[in-house]
Amino acid sequence: MARRLEFFFDYGSPYSYLADTQVEAIAARTGATLARRPMLLGGVFKATGNVSPAAFAPRAAWTGSDMALWAKTYGVPFKRNPFFPVNTLNLMRGAAAAEIDGVFDRYHPAMFRAMWVEGRNLNDMGEVVAVLKGAGLDPAHFGKRLQDQDVKDRLKDTTEEAVRRGVFGAPTSFVGERMFFGNDRLHFVERALRGEFD
Amino acid sequence: MARRLEFFFDYGSPYSYLADTQVEAIAARTGATLARRPMLLGGVFKATGNVSPAAFAPRAAWTGSDMALWAKTYGVPFKRNPFFPVNTLNLMRGAAAAEIDGVFDRYHPAMFRAMWVEGRNLNDMGEVVAVLKGAGLDPAHFGKRLQDQDVKDRLKDTTEEAVRRGVFGAPTSFVGERMFFGNDRLHFVERALRGEFD
Repeated sequence: MARRLEFFFDYGSPYSYLADTQVEAIAARTGATLARRPMLLGGVFKATGNVSPAAFAPRAAWTGSDMALWAKTYGVPFKRNPFFPVNTLNLMRGAAAAEIDGVFDRYHPAMFRAMWVEGRNLNDMGEVVAVLKGAGLDPAHFGKRLQDQDVKDRLKDTTEEAVRRGVFGAPTSFVGERMFFGNDRLHFVERALRGEFD
Repeated sequence: MARRLEFFFDYGSPYSYLADTQVEAIAARTGATLARRPMLLGGVFKATGNVSPAAFAPRAAWTGSDMALWAKTYGVPFKRNPFFPVNTLNLMRGAAAAEIDGVFDRYHPAMFRAMWVEGRNLNDMGEVVAVLKGAGLDPAHFGKRLQDQDVKDRLKDTTEEAVRRGVFGAPTSFVGERMFFGNDRLHFVERALRGEFD
């Protein structure tokens, strides 16, 4: 039976973006199935009492150069978002709606790209509308879906599940119940998918 | 001219221990010189407003399995210290004394081993005395040196230098003024020593 890589993320998290550029290749190399799990990082912080690492200035001063090295290593485009931090509630609800409605494959890359490659202001609904249009999605439909209970519940359920399983930040990966926090643990994720830690 | 790897650490930090098991090999592979820089992590936390990651329970719950995977990967012994956290002021002053007095090569491995392999209670001066004896060092001499101004100043100066250069946690490595936080960035340290980021 194929192993499963569960990848919990939030579009507002730059290390989630960096890791997201790698998880498909990791799944392909290991024969695993990949399940992207959009969660609300702000909800995780609230539930666990955690705070964003970006709120601690000395660390934030360092992560700029660190993120650039990861992007260089992965060979992917990356730019710090000048509008960071962004309230991602609607963006993550949009991801939940996209999952339910079967358009996640179009929605997902467009949001990470807009946030961490193009540096767009996704606090501005006009910008989000433009991103959705650019991905061939219907902004009016998404605007309506953000208020639907099934969408709200799906994001809330995933976030609560994450917290229950030990998540305290993003990105967080699971192989079975073995948890790996951070983009910088993907090497362990890959080894877990190969069965090295069984 | 050989590049220099500066490795700032505190004996109370388990990820410092894990990284310390690797830095000599990294320096050897890259032809770099290695400078171990004992600092007082508590002083760094105080100066920067940081708190120990171990103080945040959800993260601490995860780091146990994470540390075990690093130890397995490195092929080194590791055991969580049941007396953690330890006040390391005297241990780090001892490191400064050992440097000045030319016995750091005996002092240093003994302290990391006592803390993170043998899990000894280094809050207990009797235990520290036993560790020093085991390393062929004179406990009475060290006891006296802990009160000497040159020793106090050396530790204080290194800690202040670290903070001034951007250090906020341990371990932290420098290649020139390029900073790398964490055991999990040693792969970047090695690449920096090879000149990949010049």
